Amino acid sequence: MLMGELSNRSGVPIATITYYLREDLLFPGVGTAATCAHYDESHIRRLGLIGALLAIGDFPLAAIRRILAAVDDETVPPYQMLGTVQLALGPGISGPADDPDWIAARDEVTALLRRQGWRVLARSPARDLLISALVALRRFQVPPTAPGLDDYAQALAGLAAAEVAGLAAPASAGHEERSAAAEAAVAGMVLYERVIIALRRLAQEDAAARRFGAAGS
Amino acid sequence: MLMGELSNRSGVPIATITYYLREDLLFPGVGTAATCAHYDESHIRRLGLIGALLAIGDFPLAAIRRILAAVDDETVPPYQMLGTVQLALGPGISGPADDPDWIAARDEVTALLRRQGWRVLARSPARDLLISALVALRRFQVPPTAPGLDDYAQALAGLAAAEVAGLAAPASAGHEERSAAAEAAVAGMVLYERVIIALRRLAQEDAAARRFGAAGS
Repeated sequence: MLMGELSNRSGVPIATITYYLREDLLFPGVGTAATCAHYDESHIRRLGLIGALLAIGDFPLAAIRRILAAVDDETVPPYQMLGTVQLALGPGISGPADDPDWIAARDEVTALLRRQGWRVLARSPARDLLISALVALRRFQVPPTAPGLDDYAQALAGLAAAEVAGLAAPASAGHEERSAAAEAAVAGMVLYERVIIALRRLAQEDAAARRFGAAGS
Repeated sequence: MLMGELSNRSGVPIATITYYLREDLLFPGVGTAATCAHYDESHIRRLGLIGALLAIGDFPLAAIRRILAAVDDETVPPYQMLGTVQLALGPGISGPADDPDWIAARDEVTALLRRQGWRVLARSPARDLLISALVALRRFQVPPTAPGLDDYAQALAGLAAAEVAGLAAPASAGHEERSAAAEAAVAGMVLYERVIIALRRLAQEDAAARRFGAAGS
């Protein structure tokens, strides 16, 4: 398909597509010039992935470029691709070394990871994200009825094995097949964060309706 | 405490505190002028809540003001407070009416809610958030090993009842106690979204290390 159809089918304006081409986020089509080159399904998928990463939020283009490079590099093994995505997701704010709230939150996370038996790198940005959220929570007296961190951890660990299994492309996969599998895995990892947040809010709405008697539909 | 100590203890710069006072996000201290008025723990908690809401992302000040008004209004019942927070969290993008991907995603969510027996309003912004994430996911071939929406829904429903129970302040609560409970409930709802995302990434890191043999710590 030509650029115009690529734009129609992907819903991405032509000006944005040419910008992605210039910034090396999208691989060129087959042809001598961008507007009369031929594009295919792999370009539509790639535009969807870029859109998904942009929609999640704070991604600078450099981070998206690093993720796409890991997706495209056939020598990058699945767990390293996951690590690249997580590093790009950031933020990795480690907080002041001597603040009591930060020290307590760091200890809490270390103890949680030990209880759960999780193998997690010391420099994992998700660890820092968890610590920073716990520091903010420490300012409030969260109600004692709230589920504990271990309850959340177990619920999510039960899902993670199946999520991660999808990262591996079949050993016999060719370049195109491997690339499609890697794109789907990254999109799934990132987009399912929105799915989970949305489902949690809906579950809360339902739970509140049951407990407090709001009118549901 | 005076403004300077409030700034030190909350970690919020004085210029920001006076801005919040001017914008009616923070209630005034006791005294004739902002800088020599006396502030207390309720101001520290409120600054923490504002900071938590700002940290989550796209909150315009008007949305934060609506949330805080619901927190402070003693006539607002808990489920309505939850609804106010969810509306402010947005986004409520309902998508084109005639696009096949959007139609399919809407049907998928309706069927999911029916299977789970969840009572959710038709205009719930979390429903739109879920639909928009599913539309983006439809562009990719998500691996068949990935958990299904019902798996996520059940894991989150199991936690939601306890989360929502914390919304109710004791019937005998005075203004100060009720306000503290409402603030903690809102902070918990919002901040636990970060906790859940962080725990999911850590669970994936662990699952990937087990499956693909990355070096853990």
